[in-house]
Amino acid sequence: MKNYQAYFIDLDGTMYRGTERVEGAAEFVQYLRKHQLPLLFLTNNSSRKQEQVAAKLMDMGIEAYPEDVFTTSMATASYIARHHANAKVFAVGEEGLVQALQDQGLELVDAGADYVVIGIDREISYEKLSKACLNVREGAALLSTNGDVAIPTERGMLPGNGAFTSVVSVSTGVEAVFIGKPHAEIMEQALAKMNLSKDEVLMIGDNYDTDILAGINAEMDTLMVETGVHRFEEISAYPKQPTYKVKTLQEWLS
Amino acid sequence: MKNYQAYFIDLDGTMYRGTERVEGAAEFVQYLRKHQLPLLFLTNNSSRKQEQVAAKLMDMGIEAYPEDVFTTSMATASYIARHHANAKVFAVGEEGLVQALQDQGLELVDAGADYVVIGIDREISYEKLSKACLNVREGAALLSTNGDVAIPTERGMLPGNGAFTSVVSVSTGVEAVFIGKPHAEIMEQALAKMNLSKDEVLMIGDNYDTDILAGINAEMDTLMVETGVHRFEEISAYPKQPTYKVKTLQEWLS
Repeated sequence: MKNYQAYFIDLDGTMYRGTERVEGAAEFVQYLRKHQLPLLFLTNNSSRKQEQVAAKLMDMGIEAYPEDVFTTSMATASYIARHHANAKVFAVGEEGLVQALQDQGLELVDAGADYVVIGIDREISYEKLSKACLNVREGAALLSTNGDVAIPTERGMLPGNGAFTSVVSVSTGVEAVFIGKPHAEIMEQALAKMNLSKDEVLMIGDNYDTDILAGINAEMDTLMVETGVHRFEEISAYPKQPTYKVKTLQEWLS
Repeated sequence: MKNYQAYFIDLDGTMYRGTERVEGAAEFVQYLRKHQLPLLFLTNNSSRKQEQVAAKLMDMGIEAYPEDVFTTSMATASYIARHHANAKVFAVGEEGLVQALQDQGLELVDAGADYVVIGIDREISYEKLSKACLNVREGAALLSTNGDVAIPTERGMLPGNGAFTSVVSVSTGVEAVFIGKPHAEIMEQALAKMNLSKDEVLMIGDNYDTDILAGINAEMDTLMVETGVHRFEEISAYPKQPTYKVKTLQEWLS
């Protein structure tokens, strides 16, 4: 196994499932800490702030600090600020998205937006989606924090942000630019943040369509675990395979 | 001009725009009444009941009775009852859809549904769309009252039912069966209700993608008016043209 300078680690299905810690997760992070190997938790979940994500991990016994967390909301806000400083933004989303946009000094507006951003919003309404459509029809660019069409929960697979983004893209005919995994934007920002190149970092995750493809698309090595949504047999016929496969992170350490 | 036995008439953009009556609409309906020519108001709007639609028309000075109104909600409920008597249905939608389903003796349920029906719902919520997805993943068939992606309003084009249907179809990977115009189901039911064949009825509407295509798909003659969403120049290059085109229904009478 190659020695990597740093590790990008997915959360849902890799570190935890819902409120339950994944086996080997705490030990793996502890191993990285012990060997002073940098890590970054990379999540498509746009709803929570860095501090909230770190606190959840800590509560589960996984050593995590706010600065170790990089969310797709942060990547989205950073993308906008880089392309259009002081942009006006109409956002559909929860606390993590709003905070990230404000941290970049972006102005949140209801109308006359330069960008419409769609993130998961459990308080979604007809009015919010109407404003999103109206702003896009008036010329706003359409961004989506992530294209996940379904979210695994205790109740089953619930609709994800990619499904809600489709309301706006289908209604307006304007395609969204997606920021989160497996798209390039979040990976490029994460590498830049760590000041590392793609061949120095290992991308770790359970979801082939987001985590593993994100790494493959960014030409990084990837490690797939079987603790989340995908089983190895489901992906065995795919032409692009992960660099490594282990059932659990415990196995990776041994 | 051919003599038709009956007339199918669209509402929004043909009889009214929002709360405003379209010019020539009242006179045209009066003409049909005077000559005892049967008519059926055919609408993709699933939200209102027959009585409510007729009352709205009457308030605008257009002579209309509940039995003259055929909504896509009625066609959807009838479709289900024909395929699966006593089916269990999880419905997302407003009063008109709920009433139509109940009128067919269908049982409304939250889980264990045989059919999920998506109609426009201005009180849409994450919970409603989650239940829709869960029922579909557990095997319910997915129906949609109509595929309209946008609705013209005073505020601009707001998201329509086709855009909300995409949340469920994108999230679950299950395609919806659409009932409303331009699809065959509503047209076949309307003809059967009138006990007429396709060559005996003229389909009248303003929207090429729904009204006119519905008629063309059903092999009926069509009359397009320019009082709603589409201008004739927008459709001039389309291979399938309406049988007749008039700027207003006033012009049709003269």
